[in-house]
Amino acid sequence: MDYKKWAVSAVRDASLEREIVNRLNNLTKPVGSLGRLEEFALRYCLCRGRVEAEISRMKVFTFAGDHGITEEKITPYPSEVTYQMVLNMVNGGAAISVMCKKAGIDCAVVDMGVKGTFHEQPGLFIRKIAPGTKNFLKEPAMTEKESTKAFHAGYDLATESECDLLGIGEMGIGNTSSASALYSLILDVDPAETVGIGTGSKGLLLEKKKQVIRDAVQFHKKAWNGSPWDALRRVGGFEIAGMAGMIFGGARSGIPVVVDGFVASAAALVAMRLEPEIKSYLFFAHASAEQYHEAFLKREGIRPVLSLDMRLGEGTGSVLAMQIIAQAMECYNRMATFQSAGVSDKKE
Amino acid sequence: MDYKKWAVSAVRDASLEREIVNRLNNLTKPVGSLGRLEEFALRYCLCRGRVEAEISRMKVFTFAGDHGITEEKITPYPSEVTYQMVLNMVNGGAAISVMCKKAGIDCAVVDMGVKGTFHEQPGLFIRKIAPGTKNFLKEPAMTEKESTKAFHAGYDLATESECDLLGIGEMGIGNTSSASALYSLILDVDPAETVGIGTGSKGLLLEKKKQVIRDAVQFHKKAWNGSPWDALRRVGGFEIAGMAGMIFGGARSGIPVVVDGFVASAAALVAMRLEPEIKSYLFFAHASAEQYHEAFLKREGIRPVLSLDMRLGEGTGSVLAMQIIAQAMECYNRMATFQSAGVSDKKE
Repeated sequence: MDYKKWAVSAVRDASLEREIVNRLNNLTKPVGSLGRLEEFALRYCLCRGRVEAEISRMKVFTFAGDHGITEEKITPYPSEVTYQMVLNMVNGGAAISVMCKKAGIDCAVVDMGVKGTFHEQPGLFIRKIAPGTKNFLKEPAMTEKESTKAFHAGYDLATESECDLLGIGEMGIGNTSSASALYSLILDVDPAETVGIGTGSKGLLLEKKKQVIRDAVQFHKKAWNGSPWDALRRVGGFEIAGMAGMIFGGARSGIPVVVDGFVASAAALVAMRLEPEIKSYLFFAHASAEQYHEAFLKREGIRPVLSLDMRLGEGTGSVLAMQIIAQAMECYNRMATFQSAGVSDKKE
Repeated sequence: MDYKKWAVSAVRDASLEREIVNRLNNLTKPVGSLGRLEEFALRYCLCRGRVEAEISRMKVFTFAGDHGITEEKITPYPSEVTYQMVLNMVNGGAAISVMCKKAGIDCAVVDMGVKGTFHEQPGLFIRKIAPGTKNFLKEPAMTEKESTKAFHAGYDLATESECDLLGIGEMGIGNTSSASALYSLILDVDPAETVGIGTGSKGLLLEKKKQVIRDAVQFHKKAWNGSPWDALRRVGGFEIAGMAGMIFGGARSGIPVVVDGFVASAAALVAMRLEPEIKSYLFFAHASAEQYHEAFLKREGIRPVLSLDMRLGEGTGSVLAMQIIAQAMECYNRMATFQSAGVSDKKE
């Protein structure tokens, strides 16, 4: 893929930043006392490229896909759970559905490559590349054509989303294995550090998972051309490529993207290595309890919005962070100023 | 005050706990993957004393009061800002008003002892004890009668609140001084550690603030009878006493209370020292950026819900934490089970 054409422009604009900060400082509160909420409002407006920005519509996309690596029997849940959980999401019974409804956030599931066939229904986008990736212990998970198609699917959903804030999340039995392999390959970190329990691999199962990922990373290292894009194709997944595409689509539309946990962050890693400027369009929702996620965030100098020991995925962390970012923008837009409220300013 | 009569019963109930945990474990997610949200749901239900608990109505009370200690000129904002900010809250322009509206949380201000007279209006409870406390550098801030009256005002508001989750916050120029003095007196910590910038005391002003609090704490130490109640009366404030009362009123009604930042936590400290069991009814909203708050939480073994460098008060941190606790209960009540959604459970 020629990803040069996806270049993203920086959000740095000193005079815009001054205007936004001035507005924040005139609100009826001690300067800086909303802490990170002020940082969120500033970053949000910078991404939008204007002082007058609002969050009225938020949308979370849950990208779903199956993984050939599950043939290695390294997951406690069977592969068909991906399909079942997509139905659960569409029917409103999954955590992501419940939380989005409560928060007034639109949500949709994207079938990027689930085994099994869905019929068209509201809240479900069918963008199936194939019924699951190939087993990346033995061959690349995707062909170049497949990963490009998956990326574009996510990209287009972002540019057509008509919302002010995007959130991404995922569902896919086997996808923590894929994410661990991505971290290990791109960042050259031993899988002993990047492989965690996922949906619940413990004891011998966890040891086996580590060994499989170690072998797979070794296997791909030889032929890998060193680019994040090639890493994604080799050990990633359809839903991870879709999320990377959505990050680009959001950034290029000036819509910030809230990145969920361990797996979504692997998509963000690919995106940030393809285009470093993209980082300024991202909010990392939370430090997941999944092994290596916190270390990854620290390594990249990223401070997530929340830290609640969650490791569910689906976009559940994104929802909670989006509620907080929305509150930051609510304060930014609706609070009175010292002047408008007739409140005395500092004695200075 | 005979606070023995306010005894609170423990929320420990092993069989109830088992039932709640069972329910959490049957929801369509890997066991424990909602992390602290599961802890919040469990704690919430234990406080309510039943498996079937819901959060449908939430309410935040912002307790406002003035402080005689401002005579010492240790605050950058003039004392009349308390009055002005109460009006700003009632008119919907303050951060707490904006955030509560967005979150669908009821909010009300309580005039516990603001200088100046308000007329009755919706969203304002007038429980004025006196127009500001006495200067606690020279004499106790409150009489026994006053602190008891303030405590009861908060207590009664809680028991009459008809809601499922309470949040507390405060507004009062000078009240970080009062809170610092409370921490220092009760926990025997030097004011150099407990005194911070409050609304913005910096440089010489901050040094003066520290010295004044140090002198005041020294002064009261001699006559202090060693009880948290007497400490509250000596160096506390009407709004702090009101919050302590609300904590007791909530706990005795089985309604958990979400405690905001530095000043609200000083009220919680008093309440917890009066009745250790009360801790299980409290959620600490966030680690404030105000000096000593994080150290206090750590010392008490409390992990707050959020950490966003906020130090505004008013209950703003409580609102954000309440949104998260509400989401935890939403998942608990509305998520499908493995059985109801036809999702395969672990292969075990």
